[in-house]
Amino acid sequence: MSRPVNDRFLRACRREPVDATPVWFMRQAGRYMPEYRKLREKHTLLELCKTPELATAVTLQPMRLGVDAAILFADILLPLEPMGAPFEFAKGEGPIVHEPIATRAQIDRLRVIDPDESLPYVLAAIRLVKPELRVPLIGFAGAPFTLASYLIEGGKSVNFAKTKKLMYGEPEAFAALMGKLAEVVRRYLLAQIAAGVDAVQLFDSWVGELSPDDYRQHVQPHVAHILRDVSEPGVPVIHFGVGTSALLEPMRDAGGTVIGVDYCTSLADAWSRVGSDRALQGNMDPCALLATREVAVKHAQRVLDAAGGRPGHIFNLGHGILPETPVDHVQAVVEHVHASSAR
Amino acid sequence: MSRPVNDRFLRACRREPVDATPVWFMRQAGRYMPEYRKLREKHTLLELCKTPELATAVTLQPMRLGVDAAILFADILLPLEPMGAPFEFAKGEGPIVHEPIATRAQIDRLRVIDPDESLPYVLAAIRLVKPELRVPLIGFAGAPFTLASYLIEGGKSVNFAKTKKLMYGEPEAFAALMGKLAEVVRRYLLAQIAAGVDAVQLFDSWVGELSPDDYRQHVQPHVAHILRDVSEPGVPVIHFGVGTSALLEPMRDAGGTVIGVDYCTSLADAWSRVGSDRALQGNMDPCALLATREVAVKHAQRVLDAAGGRPGHIFNLGHGILPETPVDHVQAVVEHVHASSAR
Repeated sequence: MSRPVNDRFLRACRREPVDATPVWFMRQAGRYMPEYRKLREKHTLLELCKTPELATAVTLQPMRLGVDAAILFADILLPLEPMGAPFEFAKGEGPIVHEPIATRAQIDRLRVIDPDESLPYVLAAIRLVKPELRVPLIGFAGAPFTLASYLIEGGKSVNFAKTKKLMYGEPEAFAALMGKLAEVVRRYLLAQIAAGVDAVQLFDSWVGELSPDDYRQHVQPHVAHILRDVSEPGVPVIHFGVGTSALLEPMRDAGGTVIGVDYCTSLADAWSRVGSDRALQGNMDPCALLATREVAVKHAQRVLDAAGGRPGHIFNLGHGILPETPVDHVQAVVEHVHASSAR
Repeated sequence: MSRPVNDRFLRACRREPVDATPVWFMRQAGRYMPEYRKLREKHTLLELCKTPELATAVTLQPMRLGVDAAILFADILLPLEPMGAPFEFAKGEGPIVHEPIATRAQIDRLRVIDPDESLPYVLAAIRLVKPELRVPLIGFAGAPFTLASYLIEGGKSVNFAKTKKLMYGEPEAFAALMGKLAEVVRRYLLAQIAAGVDAVQLFDSWVGELSPDDYRQHVQPHVAHILRDVSEPGVPVIHFGVGTSALLEPMRDAGGTVIGVDYCTSLADAWSRVGSDRALQGNMDPCALLATREVAVKHAQRVLDAAGGRPGHIFNLGHGILPETPVDHVQAVVEHVHASSAR
């Protein structure tokens, strides 16, 4: 594996000194970019994910913004299809799982896949994009609770009522589902590392819907099962969820070299709670990119001020870039973060 | 004004000793009750709100469950129509504001209404229901940020992008909108108190989308403007929002005799942060009512354990009752809370 030329991001993950704060954006390859929308005119989202050449092209698109890391273009739901739960992306409605999980029998039928056999296109994309990059490549997966919620709700949810009804009412069935998902995610992240990614992010996007007690009981052991092994190869692991202000301590305890902080949490407060032995990633509000360049830059500076120049800060948003975001506002934030934080 | 026979709820608001922990539920009058669904077959939601006899009937429906407070049946959006922003409830889609607010000129045209003239049916319902009750009556209003988000987004929102774009990009226009809404809400709650409610709740349902810094800058002064005056008549004020784990301190500083805690926050942690000079309301996960009676009761006991028998705990959910909730699970929780907490 060739060493990336710009290693600011990896140094920050390890809380080593950096020449400037590294910056990348969740969903930095996506609908806000005209070149992405152009590709989407000809291809579905799943075609982009399943065609290594296209996934590579999309992964590279935001490199022109000067970000300090690339994130592989893929979708957290990709493992569900080979597990036996096919889904589609309906126009404007997000993912739809064709047969949502409602019974123990359905859970028992889910397959614990081998990613080399079942998700070869993801690993091929990693091998294809790596030589093109002068920054580290981040791989990723959805975390078990987030994947379970899509399987049970059949798509996006407002209140996660079906997921929690199973979790509270049939904790053994829920644990069996979480255990299968955790093993798949563990294998999937290890396969991505073997294929060459320099870091991985675990997206527990919807886990913020749980109380700390529920997290410790129903989620933490499964995430720990994943992150214990994945951290072994010395590859930084970013552990992120939205609305997780109340979960920072148990998420840290579940694992992660870097804790991703959402936009509703004070970064300074998060650091004092997470502790100085972890790096933090975040946490500008994605909506602060929408108004003007000046507003975007002002909010970026606020995040830098909250981080206070501590080693181990990776600048990012506190959630994904919104599709209506002007590209030049994103560009302005990258330039500002680098200039303002230059040591 | 006649004194309510059962004053457990009001005593708990004042952190006085009680014979048992008081319990009521957000949305305790609503779609989970068969008698409510029957009324809705004949009347729209707005008809129920605008006809004092019907609002009274709905307010009284959950009294058969033995709850320790009634909450007036109404909707937080009612003030918007007389302010000049009419809306409707579209089938299964929630509220739709016909002309969402996008410009300063629209904000300047909004009327700061007199509730006695513009919302007489709400005040008439309060006067009608009061003599029927043997428990205290809670009035309520939506808080300025939550109302502003409906006005700007035109309905419910996922990411509050338009609201925040205005807030970040045109802070003076946003403050003008918040100021008008705050003055309307202040007058509206004072009018409800004059009409006879025993307590009020301010629902800042969506404010949990903001960071503590944003809350302090853009919301806190407006909520404080409301709650300074509303607290004067000695009527308890419950201050509640969802996803507000990171906002407990600034929400407390904005005001409220009782701080409502959502289902994602640890109640014990919330109390140590809010301080012992406030009562707390909450915070069972509404989804824990869905599975079985036993699961519901177990989760209710967890909340009682977290409160630890401290004076000033009002048992409630951490968000509204879901429409699919079995009534007998709710009933079982009421009975358990009273029996388990009896002094």
